[in-house]
Amino acid sequence: MNILFVGDVFGSAGRHIVREHIPHVVESNAVDLLVINGENSAGGFGITPSIAEELFDLGAHVITTGNHIWDKKEIFDYMSVPADSHGRARRLIRPANYAVTTPGFGLYEGELSSGEKYAVINMQGRVFMNSCDDPFRKADELLAQIEKNSGAKVILVDFHAEATSEKAALGWYLDGRVTAVLGTHTHVPTADNRILPNGTAYQTDVGMSGPFDSVIGVEVELVLKRFLTGMPGKFEAAKGNPKMCATLIECDGNTGRAFRTQRFMLGE
Amino acid sequence: MNILFVGDVFGSAGRHIVREHIPHVVESNAVDLLVINGENSAGGFGITPSIAEELFDLGAHVITTGNHIWDKKEIFDYMSVPADSHGRARRLIRPANYAVTTPGFGLYEGELSSGEKYAVINMQGRVFMNSCDDPFRKADELLAQIEKNSGAKVILVDFHAEATSEKAALGWYLDGRVTAVLGTHTHVPTADNRILPNGTAYQTDVGMSGPFDSVIGVEVELVLKRFLTGMPGKFEAAKGNPKMCATLIECDGNTGRAFRTQRFMLGE
Amino acid sequence: MNILFVGDVFGSAGRHIVREHIPHVVESNAVDLLVINGENSAGGFGITPSIAEELFDLGAHVITTGNHIWDKKEIFDYMSVPADSHGRARRLIRPANYAVTTPGFGLYEGELSSGEKYAVINMQGRVFMNSCDDPFRKADELLAQIEKNSGAKVILVDFHAEATSEKAALGWYLDGRVTAVLGTHTHVPTADNRILPNGTAYQTDVGMSGPFDSVIGVEVELVLKRFLTGMPGKFEAAKGNPKMCATLIECDGNTGRAFRTQRFMLGE
Amino acid sequence: MNILFVGDVFGSAGRHIVREHIPHVVESNAVDLLVINGENSAGGFGITPSIAEELFDLGAHVITTGNHIWDKKEIFDYMSVPADSHGRARRLIRPANYAVTTPGFGLYEGELSSGEKYAVINMQGRVFMNSCDDPFRKADELLAQIEKNSGAKVILVDFHAEATSEKAALGWYLDGRVTAVLGTHTHVPTADNRILPNGTAYQTDVGMSGPFDSVIGVEVELVLKRFLTGMPGKFEAAKGNPKMCATLIECDGNTGRAFRTQRFMLGE
Ligand SMILES: [Fe+2]
Ligand SMILES: [Fe+2]
Ligand SMILES: [Fe+2]
Ligand SMILES: [Fe+2]
Ligand SMILES: [Fe+2]
Ligand SMILES: [Fe+2]
Ligand SMILES: [Fe+2]
Ligand SMILES: [Fe+2]
Repeated sequence: MNILFVGDVFGSAGRHIVREHIPHVVESNAVDLLVINGENSAGGFGITPSIAEELFDLGAHVITTGNHIWDKKEIFDYMSVPADSHGRARRLIRPANYAVTTPGFGLYEGELSSGEKYAVINMQGRVFMNSCDDPFRKADELLAQIEKNSGAKVILVDFHAEATSEKAALGWYLDGRVTAVLGTHTHVPTADNRILPNGTAYQTDVGMSGPFDSVIGVEVELVLKRFLTGMPGKFEAAKGNPKMCATLIECDGNTGRAFRTQRFMLGE
Repeated sequence: MNILFVGDVFGSAGRHIVREHIPHVVESNAVDLLVINGENSAGGFGITPSIAEELFDLGAHVITTGNHIWDKKEIFDYMSVPADSHGRARRLIRPANYAVTTPGFGLYEGELSSGEKYAVINMQGRVFMNSCDDPFRKADELLAQIEKNSGAKVILVDFHAEATSEKAALGWYLDGRVTAVLGTHTHVPTADNRILPNGTAYQTDVGMSGPFDSVIGVEVELVLKRFLTGMPGKFEAAKGNPKMCATLIECDGNTGRAFRTQRFMLGE
Repeated sequence: MNILFVGDVFGSAGRHIVREHIPHVVESNAVDLLVINGENSAGGFGITPSIAEELFDLGAHVITTGNHIWDKKEIFDYMSVPADSHGRARRLIRPANYAVTTPGFGLYEGELSSGEKYAVINMQGRVFMNSCDDPFRKADELLAQIEKNSGAKVILVDFHAEATSEKAALGWYLDGRVTAVLGTHTHVPTADNRILPNGTAYQTDVGMSGPFDSVIGVEVELVLKRFLTGMPGKFEAAKGNPKMCATLIECDGNTGRAFRTQRFMLGE
Repeated sequence: MNILFVGDVFGSAGRHIVREHIPHVVESNAVDLLVINGENSAGGFGITPSIAEELFDLGAHVITTGNHIWDKKEIFDYMSVPADSHGRARRLIRPANYAVTTPGFGLYEGELSSGEKYAVINMQGRVFMNSCDDPFRKADELLAQIEKNSGAKVILVDFHAEATSEKAALGWYLDGRVTAVLGTHTHVPTADNRILPNGTAYQTDVGMSGPFDSVIGVEVELVLKRFLTGMPGKFEAAKGNPKMCATLIECDGNTGRAFRTQRFMLGE
């Protein structure tokens, strides 16, 4: 099975660049499963229902997110669907290790039109980030749940985290238990994509799909002003030099073990 | 002028792998200036005088460091030399934005045997790190100082920082004013090396030169135990799968502007 | 029922001052239940079995701790006792919201010699501290457990936390559900002890029992050097000007609701 | 000389309670110098010009602030006055260790109508707070400046900081060099006001002047929702149970050394 994971879509520049590249990358790589991190797709901050629909229209099976998920309030209702739904709204997920009372879900178990089963887990790190539940223990819990429910072997984990240590640690912790642990959140692609010894694909960060003439998506001048003065000021999404960062995982659909990874960084 | 910058050398595995690769990379790329970040070269934590000598023996013109610089106490005395010295100890530098009373220096201005001048600046970030002076203002200060002193145009900045935003921001801030802003500290190489519009080479992190079957250099089991239990325990340097991460910068020696970057990740 | 809670005992100066004052305070206030936070009792960092015994000898029914609990390794074994034990080692507790696999327990349910039941909960905050489980949800869990087990109505919570906001929030969250929420960890007594509207005693921090001519227990010069230079250096417990900080809670033993609090800060 | 320092005025409840108590406390204690921290006086977040005027109308000689100073944009212009002005706007100060390009000043040197000179310094901590310049070195700098300029001996420092360790450390660092180091920011009064050995009055935190049926000023339910879910939501100033927290410092006007401190916590 071929899986394409697209990193944090940032603002309109990010939406534009993924619209341009997803179709041909999916086609030329015979992608079966498409997962997109959309936490910054609405002007850099959060995601709206209509933007989620836009990403689903591009063929996304699942949209993952992260700490920016609650930036746009319209998304609360959209995500409030039954756990056993398979509609689009159910396939927009947020970190699984958030408080149980928050809207939405952190795991989606689905089936491709070919009948092959898959699961996507979204989790958030705790180092240098706001408090949430232990992602290591939560992973154990979710894997047990998947085993009982769908029994899916192909399992993709989007680990939305800041610290390279926490991301690498989760990669090793889940090696041989999931198909891939892919990092998001830092908006910079790392050059360490690999297959860990027990068959799990790993990359510290897939990188954003957004404007690279920016500070991780935001207009340079606005961020510099913040660093230089410490004074507040609205952050606006940049537009210049959009690139799509994505990673392709090739795996055995029966065992869920990965055997190849490939990074993409595609500009205009 | 060709500059090779080697990322955080980690433990004996890191020292072994740079010993293997630096000579041929330097030769085949006609490297003029060699700079090595050595903050983790002594068992993963700090650097000793004898290990510094070992890295200088490999041809390093300057050794940069970071937050681990004080881990080995023997280094305090070694670094306590006159500001105008050009000996090896003077060429082992620490972040320039540390308190003025700390041993050592954060800037070295030197001359290649060809007579070409260069400067190396080491600075540390503040986001998610211990407090230190503002690196943006400190950069302004040091650039003014270089202009007055040696007048070097080739200026390499090792920005030892955690957050991708702070690193990118400094890159843009110094674009056109220095030859390169290269990040260190996260131990994971990023795939975003580029030349910014005004001629400054930039990469968020060069990555470590150390054991990649590890959590950023440390034995996997020890780090996992920490994440899973929160309990203390000595961190030991891992050994497996060493790789040297380095970046080559080609620049115009007269203007100091960069025109090409190349990433290396070389294993056994 | 009269409860005396003694704040973080710090080093030998702290042990000396509590030895001096606990007996007469207990006697003159007819204290029924004595709880001592001992996380810094061994030289300022952790607690050893023999020091725990020393504090139990002073009459402590329960010893609570906090983030320094693992500083002395001898304590791991000491705390590894059966959950249903009532021995001294079982009555030395650590934050309940630590990983389940860590030694010891975070709740103790006991009985006074008069037959009156009580429970002591120890928890740690997450703001500005290392990651641990959600203390709010953990409190809900533990209160349900107490209700099922002993049914104790007198319940004391030692909330070991940094941020005043998190401490105040937990106070309000548990108001009317526990006898007292007393903060520890900052080592400075706060002047806000009160009874919340539903009968829970609250104080943001009880303050340490240790040397007040210090920086929260540590020798002034050592801490100043750290702040001024950022360089490492061993922290030693100070000795000068020891004071015992403690808070007395008077409550109805049948309902567990508090009706009076009194702060103590007793020097030599 | 008698100095009254009033802690962080929070929202309308805070403004109401200081209006009620400042006049009689000033009168009955023969207060010569009145300093108010106003960083939360506008609905809990920042301060506006008209609210600053309101506090000056109450007799404030100087208004200090902290990390909330930029919450209301109207204040930027108000604070942009010449350094040598003695108008009200010049007497509204912000932490001195902010970037030099920010509006306003961090030190005010003035003269009472009696001709006695005084200086007020505002600084912010760095532990658990946003980056700013080193407050220890900045204090040295400002004290040298005061010595050269006005030569004032009576010097009050409002240290707006989170960590008790950093606050205590600055107290000891400045002991014998200033009249008082008073902490603000945590909104909880500490019971450790004292005179340090060399004559400097010290208190870790003066506490807020605002609604105490709250979580450090904010409506309890709103803060609880944040802690329980991690979801965003507007924070509103609470109203209930307002108290004025303030500290009186009695000092020798000629030497600037303090000899007595007294805490106030006055409700309706
Ligand atoms: Fe993102
Ligand atoms: Fe994110
Ligand atoms: Fe490093
Ligand atoms: Fe580092
Ligand atoms: Fe403590
Ligand atoms: Fe503590
Ligand atoms: Fe405040
Ligand atoms: Fe504040």
